[in-house]
Amino acid sequence: MIQNADYEAMVRESFARQKFMATLGAQLVHVAPGEVDIALEHRDDLTQQHGFVHAGVLGSILDSACGYAAYTLMPADGDVLSIEYKLNLLAPARGTRFVARGRVIRAGRTVTTCRAEAFADDGTAPIAILLASMMTLHDRSGIRG
Amino acid sequence: MIQNADYEAMVRESFARQKFMATLGAQLVHVAPGEVDIALEHRDDLTQQHGFVHAGVLGSILDSACGYAAYTLMPADGDVLSIEYKLNLLAPARGTRFVARGRVIRAGRTVTTCRAEAFADDGTAPIAILLASMMTLHDRSGIRG
Amino acid sequence: MIQNADYEAMVRESFARQKFMATLGAQLVHVAPGEVDIALEHRDDLTQQHGFVHAGVLGSILDSACGYAAYTLMPADGDVLSIEYKLNLLAPARGTRFVARGRVIRAGRTVTTCRAEAFADDGTAPIAILLASMMTLHDRSGIRG
Amino acid sequence: MIQNADYEAMVRESFARQKFMATLGAQLVHVAPGEVDIALEHRDDLTQQHGFVHAGVLGSILDSACGYAAYTLMPADGDVLSIEYKLNLLAPARGTRFVARGRVIRAGRTVTTCRAEAFADDGTAPIAILLASMMTLHDRSGIRG
Repeated sequence: MIQNADYEAMVRESFARQKFMATLGAQLVHVAPGEVDIALEHRDDLTQQHGFVHAGVLGSILDSACGYAAYTLMPADGDVLSIEYKLNLLAPARGTRFVARGRVIRAGRTVTTCRAEAFADDGTAPIAILLASMMTLHDRSGIRG
Repeated sequence: MIQNADYEAMVRESFARQKFMATLGAQLVHVAPGEVDIALEHRDDLTQQHGFVHAGVLGSILDSACGYAAYTLMPADGDVLSIEYKLNLLAPARGTRFVARGRVIRAGRTVTTCRAEAFADDGTAPIAILLASMMTLHDRSGIRG
Repeated sequence: MIQNADYEAMVRESFARQKFMATLGAQLVHVAPGEVDIALEHRDDLTQQHGFVHAGVLGSILDSACGYAAYTLMPADGDVLSIEYKLNLLAPARGTRFVARGRVIRAGRTVTTCRAEAFADDGTAPIAILLASMMTLHDRSGIRG
Repeated sequence: MIQNADYEAMVRESFARQKFMATLGAQLVHVAPGEVDIALEHRDDLTQQHGFVHAGVLGSILDSACGYAAYTLMPADGDVLSIEYKLNLLAPARGTRFVARGRVIRAGRTVTTCRAEAFADDGTAPIAILLASMMTLHDRSGIRG
Protein backbone atom coordinates (compact mmCIF):
# COMPACT_ATOMS: atom_id res chain seq x y z
CA MET A 1 0.00 0.00 0.00
CA ILE A 2 2.85 2.44 0.69
CA GLN A 3 4.71 3.78 -2.35
CA ASN A 4 7.55 5.42 -0.44
CA ALA A 5 9.61 3.43 2.07
CA ASP A 6 10.76 6.70 3.68
CA TYR A 7 7.26 7.91 4.40
CA GLU A 8 7.86 8.36 8.10
CA ALA A 9 10.98 10.48 7.69
CA MET A 10 9.18 12.60 5.08
CA VAL A 11 6.19 13.16 7.34
CA ARG A 12 8.39 14.09 10.29
CA GLU A 13 10.51 16.45 8.21
CA SER A 14 7.46 18.20 6.73
CA PHE A 15 5.72 18.43 10.12
CA ALA A 16 8.86 20.03 11.58
CA ARG A 17 8.57 22.73 8.91
CA GLN A 18 4.97 23.57 9.92
CA LYS A 19 5.88 26.39 12.30
CA PHE A 20 2.25 26.81 13.28
CA MET A 21 2.31 23.33 14.84
CA ALA A 22 5.19 24.45 17.09
CA THR A 23 3.23 27.63 17.93
CA LEU A 24 0.36 25.41 19.10
CA GLY A 25 2.72 23.07 20.98
CA ALA A 26 1.48 20.23 18.76
CA GLN A 27 3.49 17.03 18.51
CA LEU A 28 3.51 14.11 16.13
CA VAL A 29 2.82 11.07 18.32
CA HIS A 30 2.01 8.31 15.80
CA VAL A 31 2.99 7.75 12.15
CA ALA A 32 2.02 4.57 10.28
CA PRO A 33 0.72 3.83 6.77
CA GLY A 34 -2.51 5.79 6.42
CA GLU A 35 -2.42 6.89 10.08
CA VAL A 36 -1.11 9.97 11.86
CA ASP A 37 -1.85 11.21 15.38
CA ILE A 38 -1.05 14.71 16.64
CA ALA A 39 -1.26 15.67 20.32
CA LEU A 40 -1.57 19.00 22.08
CA GLU A 41 -1.67 20.22 25.69
CA HIS A 42 -4.29 22.70 26.93
CA ARG A 43 -2.84 26.21 27.17
CA ASP A 44 -4.64 29.41 28.10
CA ASP A 45 -3.43 31.15 24.98
CA LEU A 46 -5.28 28.61 22.81
CA THR A 47 -8.75 29.21 24.29
CA GLN A 48 -12.04 30.70 23.16
CA GLN A 49 -14.35 32.90 25.23
CA HIS A 50 -15.44 30.10 27.60
CA GLY A 51 -11.92 28.95 28.45
CA PHE A 52 -11.97 25.82 26.26
CA VAL A 53 -9.52 25.17 23.45
CA HIS A 54 -10.71 27.07 20.33
CA ALA A 55 -12.43 25.04 17.59
CA GLY A 56 -9.85 26.42 15.17
CA VAL A 57 -7.03 24.80 17.17
CA LEU A 58 -8.76 21.43 16.94
CA GLY A 59 -9.43 22.04 13.24
CA SER A 60 -5.73 22.79 12.72
CA ILE A 61 -4.42 19.58 14.26
CA LEU A 62 -7.20 17.48 12.72
CA ASP A 63 -6.42 18.93 9.26
CA SER A 64 -2.69 18.32 9.72
CA ALA A 65 -3.33 14.77 11.01
CA CYS A 66 -5.43 14.03 7.90
CA GLY A 67 -2.96 15.64 5.52
CA TYR A 68 -0.03 13.66 6.92
CA ALA A 69 -2.04 10.43 7.04
CA ALA A 70 -2.65 10.94 3.29
CA TYR A 71 1.02 11.84 2.77
CA THR A 72 2.21 8.49 4.19
CA LEU A 73 0.64 6.76 1.16
CA MET A 74 1.92 9.13 -1.53
CA PRO A 75 4.83 8.56 -3.91
CA ALA A 76 8.26 9.94 -2.98
CA ASP A 77 7.97 12.86 -5.39
CA GLY A 78 4.45 13.73 -4.29
CA ASP A 79 3.28 16.50 -2.07
CA VAL A 80 0.01 16.95 -0.21
CA LEU A 81 -2.46 19.83 -0.22
CA SER A 82 -5.78 20.21 1.61
CA ILE A 83 -8.67 20.68 -0.81
CA GLU A 84 -11.30 21.01 1.89
CA TYR A 85 -12.40 19.76 5.27
CA LYS A 86 -15.55 19.68 7.31
CA LEU A 87 -15.48 19.79 11.09
CA ASN A 88 -18.32 18.82 13.43
CA LEU A 89 -17.91 19.92 17.02
CA LEU A 90 -19.40 17.36 19.39
CA ALA A 91 -18.50 18.64 22.85
CA PRO A 92 -16.50 21.48 24.38
CA ALA A 93 -12.73 20.88 24.42
CA ARG A 94 -12.49 20.36 28.17
CA GLY A 95 -9.36 18.59 29.37
CA THR A 96 -5.61 18.88 29.65
CA ARG A 97 -4.46 16.99 26.58
CA PHE A 98 -6.00 16.43 23.14
CA VAL A 99 -5.18 13.93 20.43
CA ALA A 100 -6.22 14.22 16.77
CA ARG A 101 -6.25 10.83 15.02
CA GLY A 102 -6.15 11.09 11.20
CA ARG A 103 -6.95 8.03 9.08
CA VAL A 104 -7.12 7.48 5.32
CA ILE A 105 -10.51 6.22 4.15
CA ARG A 106 -9.60 5.91 0.47
CA ALA A 107 -6.35 6.79 -1.28
CA GLY A 108 -6.81 7.74 -4.95
CA ARG A 109 -4.23 8.83 -7.48
CA THR A 110 -5.31 12.47 -7.24
CA VAL A 111 -7.68 12.71 -4.28
CA THR A 112 -7.36 11.00 -0.91
CA THR A 113 -10.32 11.07 1.48
CA CYS A 114 -9.57 11.04 5.22
CA ARG A 115 -11.35 11.36 8.50
CA ALA A 116 -9.98 12.46 11.84
CA GLU A 117 -11.32 12.44 15.36
CA ALA A 118 -10.23 14.50 18.36
CA PHE A 119 -10.24 13.04 21.85
CA ALA A 120 -9.70 14.75 25.20
CA ASP A 121 -7.56 13.13 27.88
CA ASP A 122 -8.43 9.43 28.01
CA GLY A 123 -11.91 9.99 26.64
CA THR A 124 -13.45 7.30 24.51
CA ALA A 125 -16.01 9.59 22.86
CA PRO A 126 -14.64 12.01 20.27
CA ILE A 127 -15.10 15.74 20.91
CA ALA A 128 -14.74 16.65 17.23
CA ILE A 129 -14.81 14.83 13.91
CA LEU A 130 -13.38 15.97 10.57
CA LEU A 131 -13.91 14.66 7.02
CA ALA A 132 -11.38 15.90 4.47
CA SER A 133 -10.24 15.71 0.84
CA MET A 134 -6.50 15.85 0.23
CA MET A 135 -4.81 16.28 -3.16
CA THR A 136 -1.61 14.64 -4.33
CA LEU A 137 0.69 16.98 -6.25
CA HIS A 138 2.66 14.62 -8.43
CA ASP A 139 5.63 16.69 -9.42
CA ARG A 140 5.93 19.14 -6.53
CA SER A 141 6.18 21.82 -9.19
CA GLY A 142 3.42 23.88 -7.70
CA ILE A 143 1.30 23.95 -4.65
CA ARG A 144 -2.14 24.31 -6.14
CA GLY A 145 -3.48 22.32 -9.13
CA MET B 1 -33.48 42.42 12.63
CA ILE B 2 -31.23 42.90 15.68
CA GLN B 3 -32.65 41.79 19.02
CA ASN B 4 -29.96 43.33 21.19
CA ALA B 5 -29.03 47.01 20.85
CA ASP B 6 -25.71 46.33 22.56
CA TYR B 7 -24.64 43.70 20.03
CA GLU B 8 -21.39 45.45 19.13
CA ALA B 9 -20.19 45.79 22.71
CA MET B 10 -21.07 42.14 23.36
CA VAL B 11 -19.17 40.94 20.29
CA ARG B 12 -16.12 43.03 21.21
CA GLU B 13 -16.17 41.85 24.80
CA SER B 14 -16.48 38.17 23.82
CA PHE B 15 -13.80 38.49 21.12
CA ALA B 16 -11.43 40.04 23.68
CA ARG B 17 -11.90 36.90 25.82
CA GLN B 18 -10.85 34.60 22.92
CA LYS B 19 -7.20 34.38 23.90
CA PHE B 20 -6.43 32.33 20.82
CA MET B 21 -7.34 35.33 18.64
CA ALA B 22 -4.67 37.37 20.46
CA THR B 23 -2.20 34.50 20.01
CA LEU B 24 -2.85 34.70 16.25
CA GLY B 25 -2.63 38.51 16.26
CA ALA B 26 -6.20 38.59 14.93
CA GLN B 27 -8.21 41.79 15.19
CA LEU B 28 -11.88 42.64 14.90
CA VAL B 29 -12.06 45.18 12.05
CA HIS B 30 -15.79 45.34 11.25
CA VAL B 31 -18.93 44.65 13.30
CA ALA B 32 -22.43 45.31 11.90
CA PRO B 33 -25.75 43.41 12.04
CA GLY B 34 -25.05 40.00 10.52
CA GLU B 35 -21.49 40.97 9.54
CA VAL B 36 -18.10 40.58 11.22
CA ASP B 37 -14.63 40.90 9.69
CA ILE B 38 -11.44 39.69 11.37
CA ALA B 39 -7.96 40.57 10.08
CA LEU B 40 -4.55 39.03 10.60
CA GLU B 41 -0.96 39.80 9.55
CA HIS B 42 1.30 37.13 8.07
CA ARG B 43 3.76 35.85 10.70
CA ASP B 44 6.32 33.08 10.30
CA ASP B 45 5.02 31.27 13.36
CA LEU B 46 1.62 30.82 11.68
CA THR B 47 2.90 28.99 8.60
CA GLN B 48 2.66 25.50 7.14
CA GLN B 49 5.48 23.58 5.44
CA HIS B 50 5.55 25.79 2.32
CA GLY B 51 5.78 29.07 4.22
CA PHE B 52 2.15 30.09 3.69
CA VAL B 53 -0.30 30.75 6.51
CA HIS B 54 -1.68 27.41 7.76
CA ALA B 55 -5.19 26.44 6.64
CA GLY B 56 -6.07 26.02 10.32
CA VAL B 57 -5.27 29.69 10.96
CA LEU B 58 -7.65 30.74 8.19
CA GLY B 59 -10.22 28.26 9.50
CA SER B 60 -9.90 29.80 12.97
CA ILE B 61 -10.56 33.39 11.92
CA LEU B 62 -13.26 32.35 9.43
CA ASP B 63 -15.04 30.35 12.15
CA SER B 64 -14.80 33.24 14.61
CA ALA B 65 -16.00 35.72 11.96
CA CYS B 66 -19.05 33.52 11.31
CA GLY B 67 -19.74 32.93 14.98
CA TYR B 68 -19.64 36.63 15.81
CA ALA B 69 -21.68 37.54 12.71
CA ALA B 70 -24.35 35.16 14.05
CA TYR B 71 -23.95 36.59 17.58
CA THR B 72 -24.81 40.14 16.39
CA LEU B 73 -28.37 38.94 15.67
CA MET B 74 -28.92 36.96 18.87
CA PRO B 75 -30.95 38.05 21.92
CA ALA B 76 -29.12 39.68 24.84
CA ASP B 77 -29.26 36.53 26.96
CA GLY B 78 -28.11 34.29 24.10
CA ASP B 79 -24.73 32.76 23.50
CA VAL B 80 -23.24 31.30 20.35
CA LEU B 81 -21.66 27.92 19.69
CA SER B 82 -20.23 26.47 16.46
CA ILE B 83 -22.07 23.29 15.44
CA GLU B 84 -19.94 22.67 12.36
CA TYR B 85 -18.13 24.33 9.52
CA LYS B 86 -16.80 23.38 6.11
CA LEU B 87 -13.74 25.06 4.64
CA ASN B 88 -12.71 24.98 0.97
CA LEU B 89 -9.18 26.14 0.27
CA LEU B 90 -9.01 27.95 -3.06
CA ALA B 91 -5.43 29.22 -3.23
CA PRO B 92 -2.33 29.30 -1.02
CA ALA B 93 -2.39 31.99 1.66
CA ARG B 94 0.26 34.20 0.03
CA GLY B 95 0.34 37.79 1.21
CA THR B 96 1.03 40.03 4.16
CA ARG B 97 -2.48 40.57 5.52
CA PHE B 98 -5.63 38.44 5.49
CA VAL B 99 -9.24 39.35 6.16
CA ALA B 100 -12.01 36.89 7.01
CA ARG B 101 -15.47 38.29 6.22
CA GLY B 102 -18.30 36.45 8.02
CA ARG B 103 -21.90 37.01 6.91
CA VAL B 104 -25.21 35.57 8.13
CA ILE B 105 -27.15 33.79 5.39
CA ARG B 106 -30.16 32.90 7.52
CA ALA B 107 -30.77 33.52 11.23
CA GLY B 108 -33.09 30.98 12.82
CA ARG B 109 -34.24 30.72 16.42
CA THR B 110 -31.90 27.80 17.12
CA VAL B 111 -29.59 27.52 14.11
CA THR B 112 -27.97 30.35 12.16
CA THR B 113 -26.27 29.56 8.84
CA CYS B 114 -23.30 31.71 7.86
CA ARG B 115 -20.65 31.91 5.17
CA ALA B 116 -17.25 33.52 5.36
CA GLU B 117 -14.58 34.27 2.80
CA ALA B 118 -10.89 34.98 3.33
CA PHE B 119 -9.04 37.48 1.17
CA ALA B 120 -5.32 38.20 0.95
CA ASP B 121 -4.04 41.78 0.77
CA ASP B 122 -6.26 43.71 -1.64
CA GLY B 123 -7.24 40.61 -3.54
CA THR B 124 -10.68 40.44 -5.05
CA ALA B 125 -10.78 36.64 -5.35
CA PRO B 126 -11.24 34.73 -2.10
CA ILE B 127 -8.47 32.31 -1.04
CA ALA B 128 -10.79 30.29 1.21
CA ILE B 129 -14.53 29.95 1.76
CA LEU B 130 -16.35 28.60 4.78
CA LEU B 131 -19.98 27.53 5.29
CA ALA B 132 -21.05 27.11 8.91
CA SER B 133 -23.93 26.31 11.26
CA MET B 134 -24.04 28.23 14.53
CA MET B 135 -26.31 27.45 17.48
CA THR B 136 -28.01 29.96 19.77
CA LEU B 137 -27.93 28.99 23.44
CA HIS B 138 -30.93 30.76 24.85
CA ASP B 139 -30.24 30.81 28.54
CA ARG B 140 -26.44 30.69 28.68
CA SER B 141 -26.86 27.92 31.20
CA GLY B 142 -24.63 25.55 29.29
CA ILE B 143 -22.41 25.60 26.32
CA ARG B 144 -23.64 22.56 24.41
CA GLY B 145 -27.28 21.67 23.76
CA MET C 1 -30.28 5.57 25.79
CA ILE C 2 -33.64 5.45 23.98
CA GLN C 3 -36.34 7.83 25.22
CA ASN C 4 -39.20 6.36 23.25
CA ALA C 5 -39.98 2.64 23.47
CA ASP C 6 -41.93 2.89 20.19
CA TYR C 7 -38.99 4.25 18.24
CA GLU C 8 -39.09 1.53 15.61
CA ALA C 9 -42.77 1.95 14.81
CA MET C 10 -42.29 5.72 14.61
CA VAL C 11 -39.34 5.39 12.23
CA ARG C 12 -41.22 2.95 10.01
CA GLU C 13 -44.32 5.11 9.96
CA SER C 14 -42.37 8.27 9.07
CA PHE C 15 -40.30 6.48 6.44
CA ALA C 16 -43.50 5.20 4.82
CA ARG C 17 -44.62 8.83 4.48
CA GLN C 18 -41.41 9.80 2.59
CA LYS C 19 -42.84 9.32 -0.89
CA PHE C 20 -39.48 10.09 -2.43
CA MET C 21 -38.07 6.93 -0.83
CA ALA C 22 -40.73 4.88 -2.64
CA THR C 23 -39.90 6.73 -5.88
CA LEU C 24 -36.29 5.60 -5.45
CA GLY C 25 -37.35 2.05 -4.52
CA ALA C 26 -35.57 2.51 -1.19
CA GLN C 27 -36.36 0.19 1.69
CA LEU C 28 -35.75 0.29 5.42
CA VAL C 29 -33.70 -2.82 6.16
CA HIS C 30 -32.41 -2.22 9.71
CA VAL C 31 -33.69 -0.15 12.64
CA ALA C 32 -32.02 -0.23 16.05
CA PRO C 33 -31.15 2.43 18.67
CA GLY C 34 -28.90 4.93 16.88
CA GLU C 35 -28.77 2.79 13.72
CA VAL C 36 -30.76 2.75 10.49
CA ASP C 37 -29.92 1.09 7.17
CA ILE C 38 -31.68 1.84 3.89
CA ALA C 39 -31.21 -0.28 0.75
CA LEU C 40 -31.78 0.40 -2.92
CA GLU C 41 -31.54 -1.57 -6.18
CA HIS C 42 -29.78 -0.18 -9.25
CA ARG C 43 -32.28 1.12 -11.77
CA ASP C 44 -31.57 2.87 -15.06
CA ASP C 45 -33.82 5.78 -14.17
CA LEU C 46 -31.57 6.59 -11.17
CA THR C 47 -28.34 7.03 -13.14
CA GLN C 48 -26.01 9.87 -14.07
CA GLN C 49 -24.30 10.35 -17.44
CA HIS C 50 -21.91 7.38 -17.04
CA GLY C 51 -24.63 4.88 -16.15
CA PHE C 52 -23.86 4.74 -12.42
CA VAL C 53 -26.35 5.63 -9.72
CA HIS C 54 -26.44 9.44 -9.32
CA ALA C 55 -24.60 10.93 -6.34
CA GLY C 56 -27.84 12.63 -5.37
CA VAL C 57 -29.55 9.25 -4.99
CA LEU C 58 -26.84 8.11 -2.61
CA GLY C 59 -27.04 11.46 -0.80
CA SER C 60 -30.79 10.99 -0.41
CA ILE C 61 -30.66 7.55 1.20
CA LEU C 62 -27.60 8.47 3.31
CA ASP C 63 -29.38 11.61 4.59
CA SER C 64 -32.55 9.63 5.38
CA ALA C 65 -30.49 6.88 7.08
CA CYS C 66 -28.82 9.50 9.30
CA GLY C 67 -32.05 11.33 10.02
CA TYR C 68 -33.84 8.16 11.08
CA ALA C 69 -30.84 6.93 13.09
CA ALA C 70 -31.07 10.22 15.02
CA TYR C 71 -34.86 9.85 15.29
CA THR C 72 -34.55 6.48 17.09
CA LEU C 73 -33.02 8.32 20.07
CA MET C 74 -35.47 11.23 20.25
CA PRO C 75 -38.35 11.67 22.69
CA ALA C 76 -41.83 10.56 21.62
CA ASP C 77 -42.99 14.13 20.96
CA GLY C 78 -39.85 15.01 19.00
CA ASP C 79 -39.37 15.33 15.30
CA VAL C 80 -36.19 15.35 13.23
CA LEU C 81 -34.92 17.84 10.67
CA SER C 82 -31.68 17.82 8.66
CA ILE C 83 -29.58 20.91 9.40
CA GLU C 84 -26.82 20.00 6.97
CA TYR C 85 -24.81 17.15 5.54
CA LYS C 86 -21.53 16.65 3.77
CA LEU C 87 -21.02 13.88 1.26
CA ASN C 88 -17.67 12.57 0.02
CA LEU C 89 -17.84 10.36 -3.05
CA LEU C 90 -15.19 7.67 -2.91
CA ALA C 91 -15.89 5.50 -5.96
CA PRO C 92 -18.50 5.27 -8.73
CA ALA C 93 -21.74 3.59 -7.66
CA ARG C 94 -21.19 0.39 -9.66
CA GLY C 95 -23.26 -2.56 -8.58
CA THR C 96 -26.76 -3.92 -8.37
CA ARG C 97 -27.68 -3.10 -4.78
CA PHE C 98 -26.62 -0.32 -2.42
CA VAL C 99 -26.96 0.01 1.34
CA ALA C 100 -26.70 3.26 3.30
CA ARG C 101 -25.79 2.67 6.95
CA GLY C 102 -26.59 5.63 9.23
CA ARG C 103 -25.12 5.76 12.75
CA VAL C 104 -25.41 8.31 15.56
CA ILE C 105 -22.04 9.65 16.71
CA ARG C 106 -23.39 11.90 19.44
CA ALA C 107 -26.98 12.58 20.46
CA GLY C 108 -27.48 16.02 22.02
CA ARG C 109 -30.66 17.64 23.27
CA THR C 110 -30.91 19.89 20.23
CA VAL C 111 -28.31 18.64 17.73
CA THR C 112 -27.45 15.03 16.90
CA THR C 113 -24.35 14.31 14.83
CA CYS C 114 -24.42 11.26 12.56
CA ARG C 115 -22.34 9.60 9.92
CA ALA C 116 -23.44 7.25 7.18
CA GLU C 117 -21.61 5.09 4.70
CA ALA C 118 -22.86 3.63 1.40
CA PHE C 119 -21.75 0.19 0.25
CA ALA C 120 -22.28 -1.52 -3.11
CA ASP C 121 -23.26 -5.19 -3.24
CA ASP C 122 -21.15 -7.09 -0.73
CA GLY C 123 -18.36 -4.55 -0.84
CA THR C 124 -16.36 -3.94 2.28
CA ALA C 125 -15.05 -0.52 1.21
CA PRO C 126 -17.58 2.33 1.30
CA ILE C 127 -18.33 4.12 -1.98
CA ALA C 128 -19.59 7.26 -0.22
CA ILE C 129 -19.47 8.74 3.27
CA LEU C 130 -21.71 11.36 4.81
CA LEU C 131 -21.37 13.46 7.98
CA ALA C 132 -24.54 15.20 9.12
CA SER C 133 -26.13 17.40 11.79
CA MET C 134 -29.74 16.64 12.69
CA MET C 135 -31.99 18.82 14.82
CA THR C 136 -34.59 17.66 17.34
CA LEU C 137 -37.83 19.62 17.20
CA HIS C 138 -39.20 19.21 20.70
CA ASP C 139 -42.83 20.08 20.32
CA ARG C 140 -43.49 19.25 16.67
CA SER C 141 -45.07 22.68 16.44
CA GLY C 142 -42.98 23.67 13.48
CA ILE C 143 -40.51 22.17 11.16
CA ARG C 144 -37.70 24.70 11.27
CA GLY C 145 -36.31 26.26 14.43
CA MET D 1 -12.02 31.79 -19.60
CA ILE D 2 -13.75 29.00 -21.54
CA GLN D 3 -11.51 26.38 -23.13
CA ASN D 4 -14.19 24.71 -25.21
CA ALA D 5 -16.36 26.72 -27.58
CA ASP D 6 -18.92 23.91 -27.61
CA TYR D 7 -19.39 23.94 -23.86
CA GLU D 8 -23.14 24.48 -24.04
CA ALA D 9 -23.79 21.58 -26.40
CA MET D 10 -21.60 19.34 -24.25
CA VAL D 11 -23.44 20.29 -21.07
CA ARG D 12 -26.84 19.74 -22.71
CA GLU D 13 -25.77 16.40 -24.15
CA SER D 14 -24.39 15.15 -20.81
CA PHE D 15 -27.42 16.41 -18.87
CA ALA D 16 -29.71 14.56 -21.29
CA ARG D 17 -27.84 11.36 -20.39
CA GLN D 18 -28.49 11.84 -16.64
CA LYS D 19 -31.63 9.73 -16.50
CA PHE D 20 -32.13 10.59 -12.85
CA MET D 21 -32.70 14.24 -13.83
CA ALA D 22 -35.57 13.11 -16.09
CA THR D 23 -36.92 10.96 -13.24
CA LEU D 24 -37.01 14.10 -11.08
CA GLY D 25 -38.53 16.17 -13.89
CA ALA D 26 -35.49 18.46 -13.71
CA GLN D 27 -34.70 20.78 -16.61
CA LEU D 28 -31.66 22.76 -17.64
CA VAL D 29 -32.83 26.36 -17.73
CA HIS D 30 -29.59 28.37 -17.97
CA VAL D 31 -26.10 27.53 -19.30
CA ALA D 32 -23.33 30.16 -19.46
CA PRO D 33 -19.59 30.12 -18.70
CA GLY D 34 -19.30 29.08 -15.05
CA GLU D 35 -23.09 29.13 -14.56
CA VAL D 36 -25.80 26.49 -14.77
CA ASP D 37 -29.36 26.61 -13.45
CA ILE D 38 -31.61 23.56 -13.09
CA ALA D 39 -35.35 23.83 -12.37
CA LEU D 40 -37.87 21.39 -10.96
CA GLU D 41 -41.61 21.36 -10.26
CA HIS D 42 -43.05 20.15 -6.95
CA ARG D 43 -44.43 16.62 -7.27
CA ASP D 44 -45.88 14.46 -4.53
CA ASP D 45 -43.56 11.60 -5.37
CA LEU D 46 -40.54 13.77 -4.50
CA THR D 47 -41.59 14.58 -0.94
CA GLN D 48 -40.42 13.77 2.57
CA GLN D 49 -42.63 12.98 5.57
CA HIS D 50 -43.96 16.54 5.93
CA GLY D 51 -45.00 16.90 2.30
CA PHE D 52 -42.08 19.14 1.27
CA VAL D 53 -39.59 18.25 -1.46
CA HIS D 54 -36.97 15.90 0.02
CA ALA D 55 -33.56 17.39 0.87
CA GLY D 56 -31.99 14.73 -1.33
CA VAL D 57 -33.90 16.06 -4.35
CA LEU D 58 -32.54 19.54 -3.73
CA GLY D 59 -29.07 18.06 -3.16
CA SER D 60 -29.33 16.23 -6.49
CA ILE D 61 -30.15 19.27 -8.61
CA LEU D 62 -27.71 21.48 -6.68
CA ASP D 63 -24.91 18.92 -7.22
CA SER D 64 -25.73 18.63 -10.93
CA ALA D 65 -25.93 22.43 -11.28
CA CYS D 66 -22.45 22.74 -9.71
CA GLY D 67 -20.99 19.90 -11.75
CA TYR D 68 -22.24 21.35 -15.03
CA ALA D 69 -21.19 24.88 -14.07
CA ALA D 70 -17.67 23.47 -13.60
CA TYR D 71 -17.97 21.51 -16.85
CA THR D 72 -18.59 24.69 -18.89
CA LEU D 73 -15.02 25.79 -18.12
CA MET D 74 -13.28 22.46 -18.82
CA PRO D 75 -11.30 21.51 -21.91
CA ALA D 76 -13.07 19.60 -24.70
CA ASP D 77 -11.49 16.29 -23.72
CA GLY D 78 -12.25 16.76 -20.02
CA ASP D 79 -14.94 15.19 -17.94
CA VAL D 80 -16.33 16.19 -14.56
CA LEU D 81 -16.71 14.22 -11.36
CA SER D 82 -18.06 15.30 -7.97
CA ILE D 83 -15.44 14.91 -5.24
CA GLU D 84 -17.70 16.11 -2.45
CA TYR D 85 -20.42 18.56 -1.54
CA LYS D 86 -21.88 20.08 1.57
CA LEU D 87 -25.50 21.09 1.78
CA ASN D 88 -27.04 23.43 4.37
CA LEU D 89 -30.83 23.38 4.54
CA LEU D 90 -32.17 26.83 5.35
CA ALA D 91 -35.93 26.44 5.12
CA PRO D 92 -38.46 23.74 4.15
CA ALA D 93 -38.88 23.30 0.40
CA ARG D 94 -42.37 24.83 0.26
CA GLY D 95 -43.51 25.97 -3.17
CA THR D 96 -44.44 24.81 -6.62
CA ARG D 97 -41.16 25.32 -8.50
CA PHE D 98 -37.51 25.22 -7.42
CA VAL D 99 -34.39 26.50 -9.13
CA ALA D 100 -30.84 25.42 -8.29
CA ARG D 101 -28.26 28.00 -9.40
CA GLY D 102 -24.71 26.60 -9.67
CA ARG D 103 -21.76 29.00 -9.96
CA VAL D 104 -18.01 28.42 -10.22
CA ILE D 105 -16.04 30.12 -7.46
CA ARG D 106 -12.59 29.08 -8.66
CA ALA D 107 -11.64 26.87 -11.62
CA GLY D 108 -8.34 25.05 -11.13
CA ARG D 109 -6.61 22.60 -13.43
CA THR D 110 -7.64 19.62 -11.32
CA VAL D 111 -10.17 20.91 -8.79
CA THR D 112 -12.97 23.41 -9.37
CA THR D 113 -14.83 24.85 -6.39
CA CYS D 114 -18.48 25.78 -6.85
CA ARG D 115 -21.43 26.96 -4.84
CA ALA D 116 -25.10 26.57 -5.59
CA GLU D 117 -28.24 27.97 -4.06
CA ALA D 118 -31.80 26.69 -4.30
CA PHE D 119 -34.74 29.08 -4.49
CA ALA D 120 -38.47 28.37 -4.26
CA ASP D 121 -40.92 30.09 -6.60
CA ASP D 122 -39.96 33.77 -6.84
CA GLY D 123 -38.27 33.74 -3.47
CA THR D 124 -35.28 35.99 -2.95
CA ALA D 125 -33.92 34.08 0.05
CA PRO D 126 -32.31 30.73 -0.70
CA ILE D 127 -33.85 27.63 0.89
CA ALA D 128 -30.62 25.59 0.57
CA ILE D 129 -26.97 26.28 -0.14
CA LEU D 130 -24.32 23.88 -1.39
CA LEU D 131 -20.51 24.16 -1.51
CA ALA D 132 -18.78 21.59 -3.72
CA SER D 133 -15.45 20.39 -5.11
CA MET D 134 -15.48 19.07 -8.66
CA MET D 135 -12.63 17.22 -10.37
CA THR D 136 -11.54 17.52 -14.01
CA LEU D 137 -10.68 14.19 -15.60
CA HIS D 138 -8.27 15.18 -18.34
CA ASP D 139 -8.33 12.19 -20.59
CA ARG D 140 -11.76 10.70 -19.98
CA SER D 141 -9.99 7.40 -19.62
CA GLY D 142 -11.48 6.71 -16.24
CA ILE D 143 -14.09 8.12 -14.03
CA ARG D 144 -12.25 8.29 -10.73
CA GLY D 145 -8.71 9.62 -10.23
